[in-house]
Amino acid sequence: MDKQLSLILPRWVIPVDGRSSTLEGHAVVIENQRIKSIMPSTDALQQFPSAEQVELPDHALIPGLINAHTHAAMSLFRGLADDISLMEWLNEHIWPAEARWVDPAFMRDGTELAIAEMLLSGTTCFNDMYFYPDVVAAVAQEAGIRATVGLIVLDFPSIWAADTDEYFSKGIAVHDDTRALSSIQTAMAPHAPYTVSDEPLRQAMTYADELQIHVHMHLHETADEIAGSMQQYGQRPLGRLQELGLLNPRLMAVHMVHLTDQEIELTAQQGVHVIHCPGSNLKLASGSCRVADLIAAGANVCLGTDSAASNNDLNMLGEMRTAALLAKNTGHDAAALPAAEILKMATINAATALNMQDEIGSIEVGKSADLTAINLNHVATQPVYDPVAQIVYSASREQVSDVWVQGKRLVKNHQLTRLDLGHVLSKAEDWGQKIQQHANNAGVQT
Amino acid sequence: MDKQLSLILPRWVIPVDGRSSTLEGHAVVIENQRIKSIMPSTDALQQFPSAEQVELPDHALIPGLINAHTHAAMSLFRGLADDISLMEWLNEHIWPAEARWVDPAFMRDGTELAIAEMLLSGTTCFNDMYFYPDVVAAVAQEAGIRATVGLIVLDFPSIWAADTDEYFSKGIAVHDDTRALSSIQTAMAPHAPYTVSDEPLRQAMTYADELQIHVHMHLHETADEIAGSMQQYGQRPLGRLQELGLLNPRLMAVHMVHLTDQEIELTAQQGVHVIHCPGSNLKLASGSCRVADLIAAGANVCLGTDSAASNNDLNMLGEMRTAALLAKNTGHDAAALPAAEILKMATINAATALNMQDEIGSIEVGKSADLTAINLNHVATQPVYDPVAQIVYSASREQVSDVWVQGKRLVKNHQLTRLDLGHVLSKAEDWGQKIQQHANNAGVQT
Repeated sequence: MDKQLSLILPRWVIPVDGRSSTLEGHAVVIENQRIKSIMPSTDALQQFPSAEQVELPDHALIPGLINAHTHAAMSLFRGLADDISLMEWLNEHIWPAEARWVDPAFMRDGTELAIAEMLLSGTTCFNDMYFYPDVVAAVAQEAGIRATVGLIVLDFPSIWAADTDEYFSKGIAVHDDTRALSSIQTAMAPHAPYTVSDEPLRQAMTYADELQIHVHMHLHETADEIAGSMQQYGQRPLGRLQELGLLNPRLMAVHMVHLTDQEIELTAQQGVHVIHCPGSNLKLASGSCRVADLIAAGANVCLGTDSAASNNDLNMLGEMRTAALLAKNTGHDAAALPAAEILKMATINAATALNMQDEIGSIEVGKSADLTAINLNHVATQPVYDPVAQIVYSASREQVSDVWVQGKRLVKNHQLTRLDLGHVLSKAEDWGQKIQQHANNAGVQT
Repeated sequence: MDKQLSLILPRWVIPVDGRSSTLEGHAVVIENQRIKSIMPSTDALQQFPSAEQVELPDHALIPGLINAHTHAAMSLFRGLADDISLMEWLNEHIWPAEARWVDPAFMRDGTELAIAEMLLSGTTCFNDMYFYPDVVAAVAQEAGIRATVGLIVLDFPSIWAADTDEYFSKGIAVHDDTRALSSIQTAMAPHAPYTVSDEPLRQAMTYADELQIHVHMHLHETADEIAGSMQQYGQRPLGRLQELGLLNPRLMAVHMVHLTDQEIELTAQQGVHVIHCPGSNLKLASGSCRVADLIAAGANVCLGTDSAASNNDLNMLGEMRTAALLAKNTGHDAAALPAAEILKMATINAATALNMQDEIGSIEVGKSADLTAINLNHVATQPVYDPVAQIVYSASREQVSDVWVQGKRLVKNHQLTRLDLGHVLSKAEDWGQKIQQHANNAGVQT
């Protein structure tokens, strides 16, 4: 058997390459971690008789899903504080919990929990923003999943850094340390307009230009953020960032609710990538992103879950569905964001936002074999008239059977091949008990 | 071993009884299909040493979920036509497909597919409206799930009846034939204000009073429906139904979007039960039901999935989550409809709407043992700070491990005990191929 060659033989291949529609009875040939060819299965079996064969007779094969906005380690805070608004949630619950608990051990265990959940639900790449990006990079590298780790910048001190100088110096050290890794990249990550002042914002953009990396930032998340910016700066956050030189194709702007028509035009014209987080926006009652209008204006829009503390999971199948449903409500149009458009947002559009569109995001010859297989012979997805519609509107994470990143099969027949799931769960439970006990002792309502 | 007695030993019992919060380390004792007692597990094990023991060490036990609005057999049309608005969806796709395909065999296979999906995702009771309620009742009875079958009434002929007289006579025959069945009840089901004229509406209410059953009806689903009613009747549908005497505690009004403040007051005052279908309302861009306002006014609100053709699944865990998220967006309030309120909507509130509140909807001594166990030791629900929040915001259908209806264990360790899942799926696939082929031949875009 030729160890270099694998044939994946799904019932359907959904390339998301902007040209082909769904292919039936085709094989995806993998050689040296890359897609060598896509051809009718019968031809592939004849041409490569000694290749490894992965038979997926009831499955759709899609590009690995890309979660374009996470705070992965926060999975350990999942369900700690629900049903409250963003600023109360941050001020009363999340920031105090972070101050008390976040350290390298928390980061390691929380990120691993998140990665286990993401892989098992078909995500092959995530764009993270949190403390200790060095730990996130290390855990992702070990687990085999792709990650863009955000080099966080805040005006105030945290366990990660004492001041902006230290945020930058530690961040750039992480960038330097991870440069050689093929599955890890970095982004500058100034947290938000209301937590980072002008000078560090300018500086973040300068570093991003110099290092040729992208900028990952929360932007226009709530009406309060906009009102605060009007009060403090006399302009809306987008206007302020435009003056500071941040509105350009390096910027991955997360949330982008409460946009005016002019701001939608500006976003598209400047090539800003929009990361839509429908679950989080709904849960925190932040507002609705005008996704259909952004796409109509020509903006690149992709999808993220945000953290499991405001979602409350990291399941991109669920996020695609929420995005599709919400867009129809927001736009008062049942035809808004049809299923195929949603799948693009979770794959190729996100790859573009991360400047990885030549490497991942679609099933095309020459790209990395980052792939997700979904079994559609399931009680919730039969019959199958259109595999794309079934994936977006009906499939759930349990139907993800196999996941490859860089040709490595990280999920095989629903099981993680690298991570020890039992160990991950038991560590999460331990953290939960510790955090809960502390909250009980402190009389804090969780 | 005492065959009459079972002890269910979950980690958490969530009674939804309006008094207790979550109980830890308690057993639910079942005798003769009913809940005999709820007590600390250690006591139960001592008191009933020879009872059957069902150990669920990582699980939450909740009242069986109630899906308060379905068209179950339409699961065979799942994904046939997505991303289009209600009237085009009905006129161009669903009604022609129904005219071509619906017959007793379709009803049997479609309903069985729906029941398999519902049981496996924790639903123990559904409130159906479709053709051939006799077939739905028979299939539900065989499968062991509870059902309220709607006695459909339309102004126009269908495969089920030629005119309103026949709709009523066939419906009442179904009522008479199913009276003796403890798990099946009926409801009058005039389809909607725009498909049923005044006289049959009055008649449906009269029959409902005489038979002491409820009335199941679509109401205020879209802005078009309201505009049409203004044109045809000079008043909004709710006003028209009030004049016709339909606004009373027998009415289960499905959808109820586009309500004015006065209509919300009226709904609450008249004791009308509201069945909220957030997934369907979003997908068809119908509008958003003001659920938090209805509840504040004192209305009883419960949840339904609507059919799998407009949702696209019958998963009440997903529907609870969508309802929670959407309510925060509709009410611009992150505190709207907290998790515990949502769980009530999917259990006791629905039992009340179906006039079964003394039998099901909560875990209370004397009630029927209709129960659902959910394993929370899962990568998407660890850690567990609050089991109710994890169920509403994070759990997915794969975590439902066991389901009892009337004390019978219809799902045991994730497997159906009565229905043959492989057979159900293969029949669904056969129907899908037949329907798809016909659509292709007819040149209809599916």
